[in-house]
Amino acid sequence: MKFATFEHDGRAAVGCVEDDRLVVLPALAAQDLAAWLVQPRDRVAQAVQQARSEGRTVALARARLLPVVPAPGKVVCLGLNYADHAAEGGHAKPEYPSFFMRGATSLVAHGAPMVRPRVSDKFDFEAELAVIVGRRARHLTPQDALQAVAGYSCFNDGSIRDYQRRTAQWTIGKNFDGTGALGPWAVPAAELPSGAAGLKIQSRLNGQVMQSSDTSLMLSPVVEALCLLTEAMTLEPGDVIAMGTPSGVGHARKPPVFMKAGDRIEVEIEGIGILANPVVDESGAR
Amino acid sequence: MKFATFEHDGRAAVGCVEDDRLVVLPALAAQDLAAWLVQPRDRVAQAVQQARSEGRTVALARARLLPVVPAPGKVVCLGLNYADHAAEGGHAKPEYPSFFMRGATSLVAHGAPMVRPRVSDKFDFEAELAVIVGRRARHLTPQDALQAVAGYSCFNDGSIRDYQRRTAQWTIGKNFDGTGALGPWAVPAAELPSGAAGLKIQSRLNGQVMQSSDTSLMLSPVVEALCLLTEAMTLEPGDVIAMGTPSGVGHARKPPVFMKAGDRIEVEIEGIGILANPVVDESGAR
Repeated sequence: MKFATFEHDGRAAVGCVEDDRLVVLPALAAQDLAAWLVQPRDRVAQAVQQARSEGRTVALARARLLPVVPAPGKVVCLGLNYADHAAEGGHAKPEYPSFFMRGATSLVAHGAPMVRPRVSDKFDFEAELAVIVGRRARHLTPQDALQAVAGYSCFNDGSIRDYQRRTAQWTIGKNFDGTGALGPWAVPAAELPSGAAGLKIQSRLNGQVMQSSDTSLMLSPVVEALCLLTEAMTLEPGDVIAMGTPSGVGHARKPPVFMKAGDRIEVEIEGIGILANPVVDESGAR
Repeated sequence: MKFATFEHDGRAAVGCVEDDRLVVLPALAAQDLAAWLVQPRDRVAQAVQQARSEGRTVALARARLLPVVPAPGKVVCLGLNYADHAAEGGHAKPEYPSFFMRGATSLVAHGAPMVRPRVSDKFDFEAELAVIVGRRARHLTPQDALQAVAGYSCFNDGSIRDYQRRTAQWTIGKNFDGTGALGPWAVPAAELPSGAAGLKIQSRLNGQVMQSSDTSLMLSPVVEALCLLTEAMTLEPGDVIAMGTPSGVGHARKPPVFMKAGDRIEVEIEGIGILANPVVDESGAR
């Protein structure tokens, strides 16, 4: 099953993706997508059947998708979470993940333009697994951690490299408007391998494979990331955890490859789908 | 005028502080505090008068205050924004602020306990000026930047130092639950000097002055911080910008001083007020 968030009658609604249509689901909770991801399958089937019988469906191609969680309470990202990517950036193999945060203002939906800002031409892609939190959780243990996960999606942790490295703190380079793509939809955790392990993950720039790895190669897998994060903080429904990127990013290539207007960047994760975005330049107008 | 956020009839409400009472204001917008801060003075006076005539007031001492913005879209913090504090931590005088983010789950109200987590005894205080954003803004200029500011409050950027320095990214050490105090109330920007410059700022631990400085000594003052941030991202009503801390923090002292259960920590900013919090240990129970 796949759940997307889209603009419907002027508000964010959740739809169940069925072939080329979105079946419009009723509102459940403040963090609607997370709430639908953890519903029992028969409850979803019933809601889908009712919506179909009432004609509440929208053509997927015509829907205005939103970031799959449009207003997450927080987006926590892991840096240097694949050994090969740490190495390509000149970092030692980390003992502990490099956590940083993104604001919701940096997010864009599947299909929406990713924006290269006026102030930089160092706009890089990063294919990542996104974990969507389904319930409030603190002090998770390896035994119960996955119970906090509602589902998974694809993330493109678009980075403005020169700003990322202006100081030791990466945050500013990870928070430009329109640089973090989240989608196209989310898949319930129950329908993927435990911890979303063993899934192929790729990025493709204009059709050319740039990153190609496997989610089993993460240094801190999903369970460990959840335990480490909740040692410090409460996770809440709709929070998003971006699990870091494998090697092959643009700035580590020789010569470096950065995204520019007219490009098309894709992130694909096996069993989830393809997150695709055109790249545009930020408009010159204020 | 002073505006506080507090729990009222099971929801967050904004109150105007008058002597020892909170006058309950009607809901205005999603980010209620920011909306009230930018109302014309006569509009506020009218609402206060009406609420008083209807008996809608609460004793300040009995109100359950909330973080002055309880659910900010984002909290962006500046690190190393006073030269003396950068020096005490062994950093060169920065050319550009070290931005990082805090999640709303890390915030606590005036009067609420600040929590030393089980996993660390390195719980430090940081007195800071908090800027509360009043309107959506991108690409601010020195000329128009302050129009985006609704008001100011006090912030205690409580930090778990060993986690802050586990990797180069400070984020995890800045995001423990119950470590960031925001309050006690907010003062409209119009009632303070331009950019809240020239205000005395102090922290006191159990009554002893630990930090004592002046907001004019910030390396990036409010206008510059707003311009730098909005070069990258859109600010939204209710977003909070924590402006960094002066020297005198606990970990840089010889011997170091950290907060422990039973302590009382205060942050005072001239013209705003005193943010005071007891310190407690995190409970051992899961």
